Amino acid sequence: MVRVGILGATGYTALELIKLLLRHSQAKIEVITSRQEGRPHLASIHPSLTGRIDLQLEDIGPAAVAERCECAFLCLPHAASAEAAKELLARKVRVIDFSADYRLNDPVSYRQWYEHEHPDPERLGKTPYGLPELFRSEIPQAQLIANPGCYPTSAILPLAPLLKSGWIEADDIIVDSKSGVSGAGRTPKLNTHFPECNESISAYGVGKHRHQPEIEQILGRATGKTVQVIFTPHLTPMDRGILSVIYARPTRPLTEAEVLGHLREFYAGQPFIRIVNHLPATKDTAHTNFVDITARIVKNRLLLICAEDNLIKGASGAAVQNFNLMFGFPETTALL
Amino acid sequence: MVRVGILGATGYTALELIKLLLRHSQAKIEVITSRQEGRPHLASIHPSLTGRIDLQLEDIGPAAVAERCECAFLCLPHAASAEAAKELLARKVRVIDFSADYRLNDPVSYRQWYEHEHPDPERLGKTPYGLPELFRSEIPQAQLIANPGCYPTSAILPLAPLLKSGWIEADDIIVDSKSGVSGAGRTPKLNTHFPECNESISAYGVGKHRHQPEIEQILGRATGKTVQVIFTPHLTPMDRGILSVIYARPTRPLTEAEVLGHLREFYAGQPFIRIVNHLPATKDTAHTNFVDITARIVKNRLLLICAEDNLIKGASGAAVQNFNLMFGFPETTALL
Amino acid sequence: MVRVGILGATGYTALELIKLLLRHSQAKIEVITSRQEGRPHLASIHPSLTGRIDLQLEDIGPAAVAERCECAFLCLPHAASAEAAKELLARKVRVIDFSADYRLNDPVSYRQWYEHEHPDPERLGKTPYGLPELFRSEIPQAQLIANPGCYPTSAILPLAPLLKSGWIEADDIIVDSKSGVSGAGRTPKLNTHFPECNESISAYGVGKHRHQPEIEQILGRATGKTVQVIFTPHLTPMDRGILSVIYARPTRPLTEAEVLGHLREFYAGQPFIRIVNHLPATKDTAHTNFVDITARIVKNRLLLICAEDNLIKGASGAAVQNFNLMFGFPETTALL
Amino acid sequence: MVRVGILGATGYTALELIKLLLRHSQAKIEVITSRQEGRPHLASIHPSLTGRIDLQLEDIGPAAVAERCECAFLCLPHAASAEAAKELLARKVRVIDFSADYRLNDPVSYRQWYEHEHPDPERLGKTPYGLPELFRSEIPQAQLIANPGCYPTSAILPLAPLLKSGWIEADDIIVDSKSGVSGAGRTPKLNTHFPECNESISAYGVGKHRHQPEIEQILGRATGKTVQVIFTPHLTPMDRGILSVIYARPTRPLTEAEVLGHLREFYAGQPFIRIVNHLPATKDTAHTNFVDITARIVKNRLLLICAEDNLIKGASGAAVQNFNLMFGFPETTALL
Repeated sequence: MVRVGILGATGYTALELIKLLLRHSQAKIEVITSRQEGRPHLASIHPSLTGRIDLQLEDIGPAAVAERCECAFLCLPHAASAEAAKELLARKVRVIDFSADYRLNDPVSYRQWYEHEHPDPERLGKTPYGLPELFRSEIPQAQLIANPGCYPTSAILPLAPLLKSGWIEADDIIVDSKSGVSGAGRTPKLNTHFPECNESISAYGVGKHRHQPEIEQILGRATGKTVQVIFTPHLTPMDRGILSVIYARPTRPLTEAEVLGHLREFYAGQPFIRIVNHLPATKDTAHTNFVDITARIVKNRLLLICAEDNLIKGASGAAVQNFNLMFGFPETTALL
Repeated sequence: MVRVGILGATGYTALELIKLLLRHSQAKIEVITSRQEGRPHLASIHPSLTGRIDLQLEDIGPAAVAERCECAFLCLPHAASAEAAKELLARKVRVIDFSADYRLNDPVSYRQWYEHEHPDPERLGKTPYGLPELFRSEIPQAQLIANPGCYPTSAILPLAPLLKSGWIEADDIIVDSKSGVSGAGRTPKLNTHFPECNESISAYGVGKHRHQPEIEQILGRATGKTVQVIFTPHLTPMDRGILSVIYARPTRPLTEAEVLGHLREFYAGQPFIRIVNHLPATKDTAHTNFVDITARIVKNRLLLICAEDNLIKGASGAAVQNFNLMFGFPETTALL
Repeated sequence: MVRVGILGATGYTALELIKLLLRHSQAKIEVITSRQEGRPHLASIHPSLTGRIDLQLEDIGPAAVAERCECAFLCLPHAASAEAAKELLARKVRVIDFSADYRLNDPVSYRQWYEHEHPDPERLGKTPYGLPELFRSEIPQAQLIANPGCYPTSAILPLAPLLKSGWIEADDIIVDSKSGVSGAGRTPKLNTHFPECNESISAYGVGKHRHQPEIEQILGRATGKTVQVIFTPHLTPMDRGILSVIYARPTRPLTEAEVLGHLREFYAGQPFIRIVNHLPATKDTAHTNFVDITARIVKNRLLLICAEDNLIKGASGAAVQNFNLMFGFPETTALL
Repeated sequence: MVRVGILGATGYTALELIKLLLRHSQAKIEVITSRQEGRPHLASIHPSLTGRIDLQLEDIGPAAVAERCECAFLCLPHAASAEAAKELLARKVRVIDFSADYRLNDPVSYRQWYEHEHPDPERLGKTPYGLPELFRSEIPQAQLIANPGCYPTSAILPLAPLLKSGWIEADDIIVDSKSGVSGAGRTPKLNTHFPECNESISAYGVGKHRHQPEIEQILGRATGKTVQVIFTPHLTPMDRGILSVIYARPTRPLTEAEVLGHLREFYAGQPFIRIVNHLPATKDTAHTNFVDITARIVKNRLLLICAEDNLIKGASGAAVQNFNLMFGFPETTALL
């Protein structure tokens, strides 16, 4: 039984993580933290957890957490996350970081996109990116995992096999992604106020979203190519789910059958990747750790279409998958 | 052409009001106010108004407004609204007040429900309640109108004819109402954050909602009875619309046919009341000033079912209807 | 390992049942049927099951099913369900029936509400109603279980303790229920076509819904009282969830504290009943087998408010709970 | 006053058309048809029209319609529409055709995409395409108008100015479009059944949608270029609205400012085109005839982002706009 802590437990990814861990026979949630005062009961923050777990939120720091658990999940804002990770790692606690702090390659690009100095620059570029489907060998021994971003997962998984095989150009890729509103977090804002975003779809952060460099750098790491991506996220009137439609330029004429065959071969044995013939809907993957991918050829362009649950495979499910691999449990534990 | 001002123009009722007034051949929006600094353009607050009206929000008080218009619509918080109304009325500006400040009968019940002293107590109980279907004769000469609450409209209109005729008991009435989220206003809060209220329905303010005394007192005014209501509002995952299902106890055996007949006779000639045989859906009235009402008898209980658009007949449409009557325009101007 | 069959596997309750059983360590889905020709793969009907279960839908009858399993879940239309149950029971297969066929007390009321002769009248009134919280002792030995209706569960559970203790009148009960659209089944119809029911709420089947006699008769069975209920269902623009607000008349003055205390005592030890102090939202119970209940006193009336997931505790979760009790597994297996 | 008829009045575009025409001081709806028997009252099909128009649906053909009106709006399936148009035109009735029958250039491409012979091939390629912003001069004298498709409007309007000026390549255009479910019509189907498409987004008809050749051919007509488009439509969980994000390759380095300036100049004086600086949401245009367009440069690619209401500017609003121009009324009549 691994004792785990969750830092920053008031948001949606923490809620999903807790629900998954409650199904996990080998994990015990020992401590949950938040900056809220007064040690509120977890169920008062997440009413759906009423009667399921008897824990209070504690306003304590990484050192105090380290005394009580072997593994920490960090659901903290960026920068704060790296600060906590440093302390936890120094105290031999293994860390799965939901923030973007350890995903990029280097402090320079981190400063450029996140607009401050990285608190723990030496670990940048050396921390395994928690997509076991691409970086499996790095995960079991890892002390620290950079848990992937929700959008990047939906772009990297379909693209990596095609880039690796050299079947598509690395510098002409468009990722048009549609996300449910939970992806924007739990802090109320005008653009996620129900009457604003319900019955409406809009693009946001066009050309400026921080997941764009993440997609490019991780694809580079996975394939050895220099990748250029145009990334357009959308706010879609639904709770959860991401659908990414990816437009890539083949380096030679391709058929749908050979692309699907290549994807199936590449991901053979991966328990959460489903290469499908039909056009997937986000609902097919809702509340699961599955990623559904298909391919189409339209006018010599390759379209890759990918559906996932942004809170599960896009966040907390991936974290549990990494946790399983780090601690030697079957990969699918608590995830089916 | 009547020059009008709108005080507090950043919310949803103001937005709907502006859209209706842009269709009104005899109203000219002269001034719009908000406490926001920097005179933002209206379209920067309400992008749907881009290119439709060239006005900036001004942070000015009632006195300055009074110099520029003959009629003011107050979309202000309660208390602030009565303060503004007093000043405007003193300067001979006619006022249509969207707040609850002038709806209740007396300062005591106002203090009880709104928890502060009324700023203009003499006008309480003397201000016409802006439901022309029940208080038509009071409206044309009114200097001040208390524009009805969204829920009360959906409860008062079905109940008044039955109470007036003595066909139902006045002290055994249940109003179970379901509202779209726009009814909660435009300020982002956790309970109206999309991933919280989407895919969910919940009751709120049970036994404590301020529309309960409003329903009781206005029904009392309209019918001469002492009315007791149990009122249960619900937050429903949709932008707009209110459905109220009302359970009343007949004073003698009733048939659906005679109730429907009575309602039709009572509201004959009222352009916005539709007594229907089918069970109405809120969508039937969406974006209109119509109120759809039907009746059913179940086990000797009378059910009245009422659908309206909370932002139109429940707020801005009613305001324009009152405006039309106050200024001598056809009642349906800009409303069909 | 119990071999199970699912008859009528194309709808939503079957889908949820399959997902739950895939988590069940002691159940093996052996056979699934449908009247569709050509033995389609289950994943072609339910894309979310892709890669999770390798079964084809078979167009076979109860006799053939009986040869391959020990327990059958019937997701069939009423009447067809009783026909199948008879045959399965004759072949010693234990049956959990999702239809309403075995829920009512007698063939006369069945004919009145379902408009045809019951195919298996002797078992009517003798079949355990599958709410373990009220009829626990009857379930372990049962060969046949009448799995409860979605709405009745949300009405019976809050009401039974109050009726049993005689704290409320048995003949003055109003149940105002709001359901997600999945409750209407998977057959496309105009009223459940997205652009018709989205952004809209409406009451339906007022005074005529078949769950009204079910609520009355089962409450009668549980409490020994003759119960009269006015039941108003609503179609709510969300996938799943039922919220029932129940208005009851106390037989003596009650406080919220004593009602909540009574409910807590009554349901002590029941793993899926949560008596809560806050007003529950359907989302709190979504995708779980929990039922959240609270109570309020408003003007001497008792309000009971109950939230559940219509597809889980309202259908497939209850079925698995019954299955666990029938076959001696821990009650919460596959349900937490 | 122009007497108009609406053929095929049971769907969503007809409903929106009727609502718009009820606001039109110079149009009188004389006849509405449907293949439904028994002359149902229009309000029984569209409850939102209760009390607003007193007409019955008639099961009559074009010849009978022609005797009673000067202008016919055809909301019929393709092929049936051209059959009706022929007859109406022969009887001197002017026709606005909502179907795709007269949008394409020639019978060969019509047969290829619509899979049958065109019933009226001579008029193909000669019928004005009802986008006044591009084909204004052809409309006033037209006897027949091909009312644009909903998706094509959102793609053609942003692209035409850029293609015309030669600023983008004509053969490297991607149109990624997201539509509300009303775009799929009013006939209930599984993919538009609420619990299937709610809380889900999916692409459909990838590379096969009939609006792809329409976009290409009309852009060709408007700009003289041979245009190639990859078009990906999506079903989005909302009633109405289309958002198209268009990826184009500049022929020379462009800035956002010059593209926005060019668009503003191109559409100067067009009452329904709004070139905006912000990223538009479909809600900004909901229930209006406006089209909101902006531009972004991302990594040397030009992104054009366009929002419209699929039922108004994408169908019935455009039809009324064309009607206004055909009959000499101010272009915005009934549309603001």
